[in-house]
Amino acid sequence: MTRTDPLSPTEPLSPTDRTTLRRATEKAATERGVLLDILREGLVAHVAYPMPSHPVVLPMAYAYDPQGPDHGGTLYLHGSVAAGMMTHGEGATLCAAVTLLDGLVLARSGFHHSMNYRCAVIIGSARLVTDQTERANALDGFVDQIVPGRSGAIRPSTRKELAATAVLAIPLYEASVKQRSGAPVDEPSDAATGAWAGHIPLGISVGGAVSDEFSRQPIPDHILRRVEELRA
Amino acid sequence: MTRTDPLSPTEPLSPTDRTTLRRATEKAATERGVLLDILREGLVAHVAYPMPSHPVVLPMAYAYDPQGPDHGGTLYLHGSVAAGMMTHGEGATLCAAVTLLDGLVLARSGFHHSMNYRCAVIIGSARLVTDQTERANALDGFVDQIVPGRSGAIRPSTRKELAATAVLAIPLYEASVKQRSGAPVDEPSDAATGAWAGHIPLGISVGGAVSDEFSRQPIPDHILRRVEELRA
Repeated sequence: MTRTDPLSPTEPLSPTDRTTLRRATEKAATERGVLLDILREGLVAHVAYPMPSHPVVLPMAYAYDPQGPDHGGTLYLHGSVAAGMMTHGEGATLCAAVTLLDGLVLARSGFHHSMNYRCAVIIGSARLVTDQTERANALDGFVDQIVPGRSGAIRPSTRKELAATAVLAIPLYEASVKQRSGAPVDEPSDAATGAWAGHIPLGISVGGAVSDEFSRQPIPDHILRRVEELRA
Repeated sequence: MTRTDPLSPTEPLSPTDRTTLRRATEKAATERGVLLDILREGLVAHVAYPMPSHPVVLPMAYAYDPQGPDHGGTLYLHGSVAAGMMTHGEGATLCAAVTLLDGLVLARSGFHHSMNYRCAVIIGSARLVTDQTERANALDGFVDQIVPGRSGAIRPSTRKELAATAVLAIPLYEASVKQRSGAPVDEPSDAATGAWAGHIPLGISVGGAVSDEFSRQPIPDHILRRVEELRA
């Protein structure tokens, strides 16, 4: 593993054949900054890994580090050392999608119905993270992806917990980003009918933080800030 | 394709080895009704398909029919006849995950951080739908999954649109459902510290429907109903 220079957010995406979009190319984002924006906002990655007879896709928490040791930075996944993805994933080429659903697109034909979304798809060979500093940073990253600052408010991991957890890394190099926003794009003859069409914006709704029965402290500031940030 | 008797919502899930959960089995749902509830509420499936050297996962609209012609009912996916999944998917074993994110779980250790969610994972061999009635019903289904009743409010598909669209079907038979809800589950020694822990409920936020510039009709009732339903 040689550390490479981090790629700038204005570097082009899609450097390889298998992450170059061939269809609906007007929806393709071309700068790495859009990829990083999606990774910052997302909470869940859907990760596909190859089993002998079929692929499996599962929702997973993730962390990422644009300055990580892999080419283009690093996407981190983790799980129990006994989990299928951890035992089958190391050395395999994984594919991870982070999708933000922004709206429903209601056109005048079924064909032009769509959704507004931002989606990053990352393909890469999985590396088992063994360096203890990198592992610790990644484990903090999973927690801070959920609530920034959270890793500083909880107790350190125990040796038993660390031994039970595998961390995989994928380079953030091979990636494609697709996005769609706004109104439907109808056939001109359909638009001319004046029939209703439009879109319904969607986002994340956030309830207030719920303290558990053992909490004897008020809701911490980093939690309140996160609720406000998710509401914005 | 022989039509089989539909499975009852109280039939057990996980009838095969590859959809039997081995870990965190307390999170496994065991009745088909939970699968159907998730499919009804979801908007996007993340579908993995096998490429020669790696799996690819993409977000896709979907439709489903518990009475569909496949064993256990049918999950439908669609795309351009030129799309990779449609050309590589037929006959392949696909894996589709529909995930509803219900909350963030903030424990007193990183190890017990989690998310509240409901997730259905379906594995099945893809069948290219060629029967014209089944194809038409599935195409209506994609639109009605987004907004129930929408297919009755738009013009019929043209022959050109139909020729450009491939529909794949996967049986709803091999499926697993995992779900988590509520407060974190901490180590007793951590809970005893009284440090704050809890969860943040999440859902979908819905803006009002936005009419496009060509609409000369008021927002239809089926759209207004959908906005209210998504807000509930």
